[in-house]
Amino acid sequence: MSNNKNHSNGNNANSNGNKNKNNGNNQNKQQQVAPQLQKPAKKPHQNQPQKRTLPIRITPLGGLNEIGKNLYVFECANDMFIIDCGLAFPDADMLGVDIVIPDFSYLEENKSKFRGVVLTHGHEDHIGALPYLLKNINVPVYGTRLTIGLIEGKLKEHGILKQSSLNVVQPRQTVSMGCMAVEFIRVNHSIPDACALAVHSPAGIIVHTGDFKVDYTPIGTEEVIDLARFGELGNKGVLALLSESTNAERPGYATSERKVGESFKGIFATAEDRRIIVATFSSNIHRIQQIVDNAAATGRYVAIIGRSMLNVMSKAVELGYIKVSPKMIIDIDAVNKYPPGKVVIITTGSQGEPLSALSRMAGGDHRQVKISSHDLIIISATPIPGNEKLVGKTVNSLLKLGAEVVYEKMYDVHVSGHACQDELKMMISLTRPKFFIPIHGEYKHLKKHAQLAIAMGIPEERIFLAETGDVIETDSVDMKILGKVGAGAVLVDGSGVGDVGAVVLRDRKKLAEDGLMTIVVAIERETGQILSGPDIVSRGFVYVRESEELLSEARTLMRSVLENCAAKNTREWGTVKNQMKDKMSDLIYSRTKRSPMILPILMMVE
Amino acid sequence: MSNNKNHSNGNNANSNGNKNKNNGNNQNKQQQVAPQLQKPAKKPHQNQPQKRTLPIRITPLGGLNEIGKNLYVFECANDMFIIDCGLAFPDADMLGVDIVIPDFSYLEENKSKFRGVVLTHGHEDHIGALPYLLKNINVPVYGTRLTIGLIEGKLKEHGILKQSSLNVVQPRQTVSMGCMAVEFIRVNHSIPDACALAVHSPAGIIVHTGDFKVDYTPIGTEEVIDLARFGELGNKGVLALLSESTNAERPGYATSERKVGESFKGIFATAEDRRIIVATFSSNIHRIQQIVDNAAATGRYVAIIGRSMLNVMSKAVELGYIKVSPKMIIDIDAVNKYPPGKVVIITTGSQGEPLSALSRMAGGDHRQVKISSHDLIIISATPIPGNEKLVGKTVNSLLKLGAEVVYEKMYDVHVSGHACQDELKMMISLTRPKFFIPIHGEYKHLKKHAQLAIAMGIPEERIFLAETGDVIETDSVDMKILGKVGAGAVLVDGSGVGDVGAVVLRDRKKLAEDGLMTIVVAIERETGQILSGPDIVSRGFVYVRESEELLSEARTLMRSVLENCAAKNTREWGTVKNQMKDKMSDLIYSRTKRSPMILPILMMVE
Repeated sequence: MSNNKNHSNGNNANSNGNKNKNNGNNQNKQQQVAPQLQKPAKKPHQNQPQKRTLPIRITPLGGLNEIGKNLYVFECANDMFIIDCGLAFPDADMLGVDIVIPDFSYLEENKSKFRGVVLTHGHEDHIGALPYLLKNINVPVYGTRLTIGLIEGKLKEHGILKQSSLNVVQPRQTVSMGCMAVEFIRVNHSIPDACALAVHSPAGIIVHTGDFKVDYTPIGTEEVIDLARFGELGNKGVLALLSESTNAERPGYATSERKVGESFKGIFATAEDRRIIVATFSSNIHRIQQIVDNAAATGRYVAIIGRSMLNVMSKAVELGYIKVSPKMIIDIDAVNKYPPGKVVIITTGSQGEPLSALSRMAGGDHRQVKISSHDLIIISATPIPGNEKLVGKTVNSLLKLGAEVVYEKMYDVHVSGHACQDELKMMISLTRPKFFIPIHGEYKHLKKHAQLAIAMGIPEERIFLAETGDVIETDSVDMKILGKVGAGAVLVDGSGVGDVGAVVLRDRKKLAEDGLMTIVVAIERETGQILSGPDIVSRGFVYVRESEELLSEARTLMRSVLENCAAKNTREWGTVKNQMKDKMSDLIYSRTKRSPMILPILMMVE
Repeated sequence: MSNNKNHSNGNNANSNGNKNKNNGNNQNKQQQVAPQLQKPAKKPHQNQPQKRTLPIRITPLGGLNEIGKNLYVFECANDMFIIDCGLAFPDADMLGVDIVIPDFSYLEENKSKFRGVVLTHGHEDHIGALPYLLKNINVPVYGTRLTIGLIEGKLKEHGILKQSSLNVVQPRQTVSMGCMAVEFIRVNHSIPDACALAVHSPAGIIVHTGDFKVDYTPIGTEEVIDLARFGELGNKGVLALLSESTNAERPGYATSERKVGESFKGIFATAEDRRIIVATFSSNIHRIQQIVDNAAATGRYVAIIGRSMLNVMSKAVELGYIKVSPKMIIDIDAVNKYPPGKVVIITTGSQGEPLSALSRMAGGDHRQVKISSHDLIIISATPIPGNEKLVGKTVNSLLKLGAEVVYEKMYDVHVSGHACQDELKMMISLTRPKFFIPIHGEYKHLKKHAQLAIAMGIPEERIFLAETGDVIETDSVDMKILGKVGAGAVLVDGSGVGDVGAVVLRDRKKLAEDGLMTIVVAIERETGQILSGPDIVSRGFVYVRESEELLSEARTLMRSVLENCAAKNTREWGTVKNQMKDKMSDLIYSRTKRSPMILPILMMVE
């Protein structure tokens, strides 16, 4: 695989030449038996111009070597657009951080040629950072109906809905982006209305899969992924394929969403007069439809809990993505008026998020829903890596309250929305790209996906394992990584965007581990004499009553440091503070084997 | 299942009566064809006294509804002993905590009848808290040879080896504990020399499985679990079975450790002239033996990295649990003198622990081992729940450095050391206990294990889902939960044992999320006038340069609060501080949507 900076692809003409020769042979043989047959269609790449074209540049500003904050910049001549504008959830070491968004500085620098944003689907890791972008750069946004519907809610919350230009696009429609055009192609995924994109550029066709799976039996009005169009593009010749890698480690095919509905059917049948509670992702509208359908089939009312679940549900019902009789929906405040056997509750919290509705039920402090042996709870999701312990904790608590909880893999109450190895191979087979760039995954996923492509016969030197910020350029003959642009993680904490950086996180980590000890002393500036203190205030270190002896020792030590400095007539207060810090650290470590943050503060009194 | 406090078991005689009848019928039929046959052996429980006996009490002080800190107290008349004395690793919300140990206060209260500690095997969750116990209460310790060997190292580190009484016991040997006796029974597990225990008491035989699996093809000199003895005890009549529940959710049987060796063989064969690095648990001595054997078979030298790996390895070699030619072992400092194809490195870090040797290799800052495409790395472990992201990060980094990394389940480079459902059923079948107490697991594991027991025909009312601290008593006729004793988690942070509690952890959490802001002001006590300040020092809040405007606003606000108080002649300094805190919180939240800890400090100058 090429992850070196520059690669020239001189072999290409040669290998195509060989293919031509083979085709010629086959044709000759066939002519003898069936002279009326047309020439077989040319293999791809033969269609591709052998001359260098106007180059197109692809610059991922997120989504490579990470899960989340997907953002791909496409540039050609004086035009630029982006695919997706997602957020990422903070790593465990990003203490206190709410969300992570891409660095937009490259987009701001190229504002004048920025033609718009194209969205593949409505998941947070693809649309979640959009409000932060649009606040600074107001460009048109294109997406399918549900995606735009979900965006509207976000922009409203951020108070920028009115000023924004949102445009609904249908699959197979094309949006012009200056000298480029972007075609939407229907795919299956764990949210309706997901699309792949074909970028038609002077250099050739570049396919970006978005997130996809192949579901031959999708739910409701959802149609099967438009495999035919991928094949047609493949025959025309695809210059490059950017394909998602989430499940590149999983053999076989992803299971159809319909399978979950069948599992629900079986489980609902065992519930009898118990209440059913199903936790799932709020965006999984097909899943919700199947819960609703099974509720209808078993004569149960449906109540919805959780802010994001309510938001998505109302939007999905409004737009017709969920079909449900209004009579079936009951308010959660009314839920206890119905017998348990007549109720299904759909809730958030499938990841064990501490503040979610399901966690509050598990903790016994949900206002309307008290869990008991009259509940059958289905956790219709698998834990996202990092959430395993939280989910386990929720399951334990629900079981202790007497509920039956269905959460194990064997019950098939969840399927993945991402293509597994055989679907990824299918995508490569259909599009037969000249160049291949695995996207949307950690390095191990990208690498595994690259290995699949190699196994499919794509030459290693035409596969690019790129990094966020890499500028990938192709002139239709070669592809190379030109260099890097500014890219990275911008941390959002409260209303602050980007004001929490490495120093702040380092301090938070230290405070989290051993707490802090503040030493305050008031000093007469003229004489250096102590007027008040030293006082010691600690937090997160040890319980105060346990440490009185230590604190008294510490005060004595600090006083002696200060008196010593005064005796020497030291007036470099920075030095004094450092001495206080060092002596205090040594004392605390020797007594407790801990290293709290030491914060000496000298108040100068004139 | 009985998790109510008190349960009387009147049905018992009746159900035995029925069984007798059936036996009688069978016997009559058989007599006709084979009169020389003896009577069939009686079913268990018939052997058990129907009269109430001296009661025995079982009190778990850890290990139930949690993973780790296993400790079971057994008491009868004036005698008490404990099985295991393990530690637990802190949850994510126990910020800064190093390890968690059981609360020993119940043992201290009953010191006078405390006869000793019996250990099932040498894993940290079974022996890790022992030094903390022995520092306070010096009682004899009994365990198999390897277990005692590993304990020695720990007690040496804590400086209490000489004063301690450590006793090596062989499987099938029995140790007297006053009116009780404890028999060691060989089992298989992921560490050699693991044992289950049969407690012979006036009330009857109680079997405690420890951690076990059934491995018909164990490694080296290890023998197969002593199934015959469990069966023999079952025929004598087992009053109660305490059986481990770790894998109660997994169907089937655990795979033999030998399978891993076969996988190693295949992978080693593909390594060719690359260096092989295997990361695994240091205590998995069978695994290490198999790595060593495969190294020997392929003509490779072995280097060991990681403090715990070196400790265990030297102890295991010394005691003969690992057989290796001394010539094969090379020092890690010499490792680069050998061609990569001649080396295997065995290392810690299979859980992605940030400071482990493997993590340092992945980060490119291991002194002796630089990773490249000349390395084939095997991660011979599965992530413990909670460690998935750390392991993923390590794998990504190693792959980026060019190494091949074998970590996926499909390669069979790890097997579990815990019994799966069919082995758990086998244990129940062999011992045929009257009462059943699932132990060693979270609630979901215990619950699932109880369900298995019910499916095996153990009446629900004889199964006890107990909690840590519950006092379970049986007089051989009934079993009931009498009440609770003090039990819980004692947090160890640095050298402090138990001085980090809820308040400290709450403060650490707050500091971790939004940092802190200290406001210091020197005030003349007499007049209430400000002599110096208010000064504001923040840490972990925002990067100072970004927040100058906010801080200046905050200083002005604090000054006005203080001047206002001075004008009103307020001398209740607590009130003043609360006002400062509230006003500052409001300002900060309105500007940043964050809630740092606010720490106002008033220095009174006389």
